[in-house]
Amino acid sequence: MTTAQQQALFYDVEQQAITFQGRKLFQQQPNCPIAVLGQGQADVSMYRGNFDIQDHLLTKWPLTIQDHQANTDRLVLTLGTHDTAYLCLTFQIDAQAQLIVTPEVLTGSWNRLWLRIVAEPSDNVYGGGEQLSYFNLRGHHFPLWSSEPGIGRNKHTLTTFQADQDHAGGDYYTTNFPEATFISSQKYYCHATTYAYADFDFSQPGYYDLQFWAIPERLQFGTADDYPSLISKLADQLGRTQGLPEWTNNGVIIGLQGGTERVEAIKQKLQQHHVQLAGLWCQDWEGTQTTSFGKRNYWEWRADSKLYPQLKAHIQNWQQEKLQFLAYINPYVVEDSDLFNEGAAHGYFAKTQAGDVYLVDFGEFLCGVVDFTNPAAYDWFKQVIQHNLIDIGIKGWMADFGEYLPTDVVLYDNSDPMVRHNQWPMLWAKCNYDAVQESAHPEELVYFMRAGATGSQKYGQLLWAGDQSVNWSKDDGIVSTIPAALSSGMVGISLSHSDIGGYTSMYGNIRSKELFMRWAEMAAFTPVMRTHEGNRPQQNFQVYDDDDAMAHLASCTQIFTKLTPYRQAVVNEAVTSGLPAQRPLMMYYDEPAADNCQTEYLFGRDLLVAPVVQPHQASWTVYLPDDQWVNLWTGESYTGGTYDVPAPIGQTPVFYRQSSAFTELFKEIGALK
Amino acid sequence: MTTAQQQALFYDVEQQAITFQGRKLFQQQPNCPIAVLGQGQADVSMYRGNFDIQDHLLTKWPLTIQDHQANTDRLVLTLGTHDTAYLCLTFQIDAQAQLIVTPEVLTGSWNRLWLRIVAEPSDNVYGGGEQLSYFNLRGHHFPLWSSEPGIGRNKHTLTTFQADQDHAGGDYYTTNFPEATFISSQKYYCHATTYAYADFDFSQPGYYDLQFWAIPERLQFGTADDYPSLISKLADQLGRTQGLPEWTNNGVIIGLQGGTERVEAIKQKLQQHHVQLAGLWCQDWEGTQTTSFGKRNYWEWRADSKLYPQLKAHIQNWQQEKLQFLAYINPYVVEDSDLFNEGAAHGYFAKTQAGDVYLVDFGEFLCGVVDFTNPAAYDWFKQVIQHNLIDIGIKGWMADFGEYLPTDVVLYDNSDPMVRHNQWPMLWAKCNYDAVQESAHPEELVYFMRAGATGSQKYGQLLWAGDQSVNWSKDDGIVSTIPAALSSGMVGISLSHSDIGGYTSMYGNIRSKELFMRWAEMAAFTPVMRTHEGNRPQQNFQVYDDDDAMAHLASCTQIFTKLTPYRQAVVNEAVTSGLPAQRPLMMYYDEPAADNCQTEYLFGRDLLVAPVVQPHQASWTVYLPDDQWVNLWTGESYTGGTYDVPAPIGQTPVFYRQSSAFTELFKEIGALK
Repeated sequence: MTTAQQQALFYDVEQQAITFQGRKLFQQQPNCPIAVLGQGQADVSMYRGNFDIQDHLLTKWPLTIQDHQANTDRLVLTLGTHDTAYLCLTFQIDAQAQLIVTPEVLTGSWNRLWLRIVAEPSDNVYGGGEQLSYFNLRGHHFPLWSSEPGIGRNKHTLTTFQADQDHAGGDYYTTNFPEATFISSQKYYCHATTYAYADFDFSQPGYYDLQFWAIPERLQFGTADDYPSLISKLADQLGRTQGLPEWTNNGVIIGLQGGTERVEAIKQKLQQHHVQLAGLWCQDWEGTQTTSFGKRNYWEWRADSKLYPQLKAHIQNWQQEKLQFLAYINPYVVEDSDLFNEGAAHGYFAKTQAGDVYLVDFGEFLCGVVDFTNPAAYDWFKQVIQHNLIDIGIKGWMADFGEYLPTDVVLYDNSDPMVRHNQWPMLWAKCNYDAVQESAHPEELVYFMRAGATGSQKYGQLLWAGDQSVNWSKDDGIVSTIPAALSSGMVGISLSHSDIGGYTSMYGNIRSKELFMRWAEMAAFTPVMRTHEGNRPQQNFQVYDDDDAMAHLASCTQIFTKLTPYRQAVVNEAVTSGLPAQRPLMMYYDEPAADNCQTEYLFGRDLLVAPVVQPHQASWTVYLPDDQWVNLWTGESYTGGTYDVPAPIGQTPVFYRQSSAFTELFKEIGALK
Repeated sequence: MTTAQQQALFYDVEQQAITFQGRKLFQQQPNCPIAVLGQGQADVSMYRGNFDIQDHLLTKWPLTIQDHQANTDRLVLTLGTHDTAYLCLTFQIDAQAQLIVTPEVLTGSWNRLWLRIVAEPSDNVYGGGEQLSYFNLRGHHFPLWSSEPGIGRNKHTLTTFQADQDHAGGDYYTTNFPEATFISSQKYYCHATTYAYADFDFSQPGYYDLQFWAIPERLQFGTADDYPSLISKLADQLGRTQGLPEWTNNGVIIGLQGGTERVEAIKQKLQQHHVQLAGLWCQDWEGTQTTSFGKRNYWEWRADSKLYPQLKAHIQNWQQEKLQFLAYINPYVVEDSDLFNEGAAHGYFAKTQAGDVYLVDFGEFLCGVVDFTNPAAYDWFKQVIQHNLIDIGIKGWMADFGEYLPTDVVLYDNSDPMVRHNQWPMLWAKCNYDAVQESAHPEELVYFMRAGATGSQKYGQLLWAGDQSVNWSKDDGIVSTIPAALSSGMVGISLSHSDIGGYTSMYGNIRSKELFMRWAEMAAFTPVMRTHEGNRPQQNFQVYDDDDAMAHLASCTQIFTKLTPYRQAVVNEAVTSGLPAQRPLMMYYDEPAADNCQTEYLFGRDLLVAPVVQPHQASWTVYLPDDQWVNLWTGESYTGGTYDVPAPIGQTPVFYRQSSAFTELFKEIGALK
């Protein structure tokens, strides 16, 4: 055993290398310095949540080590150039056996920092928040900036090209939920305490280049011998979800719109077709306004008395049928509404340089941005949630948006919006969290968010994978929900789900019946089942228009409800250990094929789900890692390998571990087919 | 008069500002230094002449002025940081009253240099070599790297999107002919003596940021009171064309393929339709090979005895009809041919790191790259031109390519291919130049090139605007030939022309008859008329298939030949003064509308050409700067303003100056309609 391995923190003076728990993390090398300081000027423009960000970089100074002070659990490096010390990096082991790296600028006004972490060419990297195109981040760089995902996230698709004409196209890294956290296959995590714009570059064979647009408060590294322990350890630091209300196990949460009568009629129709319902989710509960894009919700956040008259009474009636009502809210308030005027009078909105309310364009209507840095505004909006939603019996809601904080607003606390921007989704999550926790029965409530940030582990109860396209495309369609769940799961976001059938229908993309069915089959093996009518309900397939699809959905809800004991165990594990409900295969199986697998997942420890994510498939090729597997539908046994298995509609491939404590339950479910 | 204006070179010590001929060029300011040094590592990949270039920038150090030594015609600045001097900039007035700025690195191994030149927000900037999307460069940055222009040079077009799938799309700055030279509307030129990759950024209101990927030998600045004098002064430095052979005035050079019989038959048909011919240009004179893309020429550079048997005798026959034969050549030699084997045996090709011949993929066939840094290889290929072309009576040729020098070749002189790359077109031009100048009758010969570099002013006899798309698109079609001629004209490239009808037919773009006709009308008012059958001759409109189009072309050639005395005067001005044949309106007219005008041009001093560059136009809106103008076709008089004028097919709008010495000639041409 070498000295480096004996010590938790070891500094090799000659090699100028820093080793933590046997992992070499930093090494000063010619042309590959540990730290680089810089000065840049950001150039940011936003169009409806889509950002164009450029850096005018003036200075980039690689630093050399000028001095070091080392003992067994603490190392202080002084870095600089030309005999001037510019940066101090303190490396220290904390009480949780983490390595804490604290950068401190000694002189100069620097707003760019690059830290280079030593890598092996064979390393894999995971995390980065919720990433939808690449589960394994190695080989790419990831700008970390909260934004609309973009319509089309692959620059080689025609959809993206078309969306780019409208400044609405995305790229492989665009996400509602970026986070400066990653997991290395050397079995350590690295988390940076900062919300500033960052760009983590994993494209180089010998190092990871972490770029920050502000000096981060600190970086923390933790290690473990296996991934589950590592993720639990990270979750200990970042927080864990509160779990899900019991009633979500009752079936699907069905997304409907159009007012009480229509909702009630469709509800009955679904029930007649034996669809098991947990909730009615009506995103238009607050009424609608008409724009040239069609109907848009009216963002004043109170029940609309025309569309949903006497909503409170209706909610009570539905609850007697064991059906919950879910609503929709976001942290913006439409101009000229009563709520807007109230908030404006109190100065609760973010302001322009001139001191007026900063109005953000959401597509032919303008909104004020609730200024969460103002404690009074925060409380005010929390009370809106409490009074207008919780108090009338609403048990769940989509807590939408959070990614739109413009970078040129003036905030109450005068903090820099460039740094607040990425934090905003967490503040919005916390506002929901506090509203819930202060209520009489927090355990009955659920809110789901697409935006996230460090802290969403605790404050974001349930993630949803954002606005997937209503198609089979790799970067935007059904399959992109898998890396979304897996990557966010690696950073401690343990509960995710998605819009069954997808959301975004643009440029001729129309949801098919088959897509809806395959999506529902997959959703039965996620924490929550919830449908969405999509952004253009009338042009897209809707389950309630089709008897066959209702029968199929009924079957999926039957599977889902039947699976409740297992799912509850999985969710309980999330609550207590931070382990994600949907887990990558590499978490347990050290096989090359598992490293990059992002079309399959483990649901809990014992179910392997390999959803059919292509149209017109009667069978499906599945990769099974080395274990004893049983096909949920056929009962056939398998060991590790690649197999072509039957996959008729209704039976997306699922396998359970022969050693599971739930084999009897799984057999019962398999018999439902 | 201030001191700064009194002196040619003035250094204001307090302001740290350098003024040359009354123009403030440099000023050290906080966050806006005169010079920045850096270190970067280029990451270059090439796919068939399309380059992807990234910089891994390690260091960027803004420098401050540490010392200065000044007298009336010489200033030496020492720049550095932390009391270390890194760069010396010497500013000196030369015998031609130019300001010569010479950077010298004092210590360190730097390969990036930024120089910032003071700008006024209202400045316009021109030049940059041959630029096809923006004549006025202000507001954009221009990477200067010789490459294929790309199929589609506008990222918002579907064509570009489609081409990008094949790594063949371009961007607004991609050009066969970049040059580190620009003209400011403060009436000075700036030319950098370097062929290294550069990026000139004119997007900032207060400065121009000139980035170089090697320390340039020097920058030179010259001033004048008007643009014609300024361009002449620049041409005195960079060189001037030899002009054009007399026979090019005889009519159109017609692009044909398919062997002697087909060429002769079409020639006769055209003559029967009264098309006046100057030459027959057969790019397949060296024979063809078949690839999956279709027929490609066989790059061995000798007459193919099957397609063109007894070519020398045929050439003599055609010459008796006053018809010249033109061929095609480029500086690559197809693998396994006799010429290749000969060159390889002598080591005349660029090599791989392993010492083998470096083979470049040109689309299912591989070629060696003639190594022009090897004097013996240069002479060898010059003799190929002399023996295989000139000696058999060929009087002109397309000297194609030059942009493909890979950046990982090993050259004979071991020079850096990153620096040679941009120079290669000039070396290729010079090889042609020398072949011509050493021949018995250089004045009878013409070669035309699309690639260029500093030195092409002298060695590139005639530019052609590259591979336009066969359409009306702004960045790729007919109209892009105008900024191409105007921008290259601003840096002393005085003779340009284009493929009548365009070249590139891809992704469903097909040449129409109307496009061909409008292009021919325009070409009658350029130095040379030449057609091209395009890359897919059979799918595109060909003039010889259409009686009506042949009559139209006959009319255009009649105008062209009739215009000869005027055109000769214009070409003579190019030879003696370096003034371009096609001139931007801003060269003579100080009007805001002239600053950005890139759809019209002056042909010589007296003709204003406003080509119809949209389909289905019976009339056309023209902008006329303040002068006395006469419509060439109607005889109507105009003063400055914007007018809608008749523009039937055959009469693209052209105006002459009432004060011209050629008014009688112009009247005769107008009567030809």
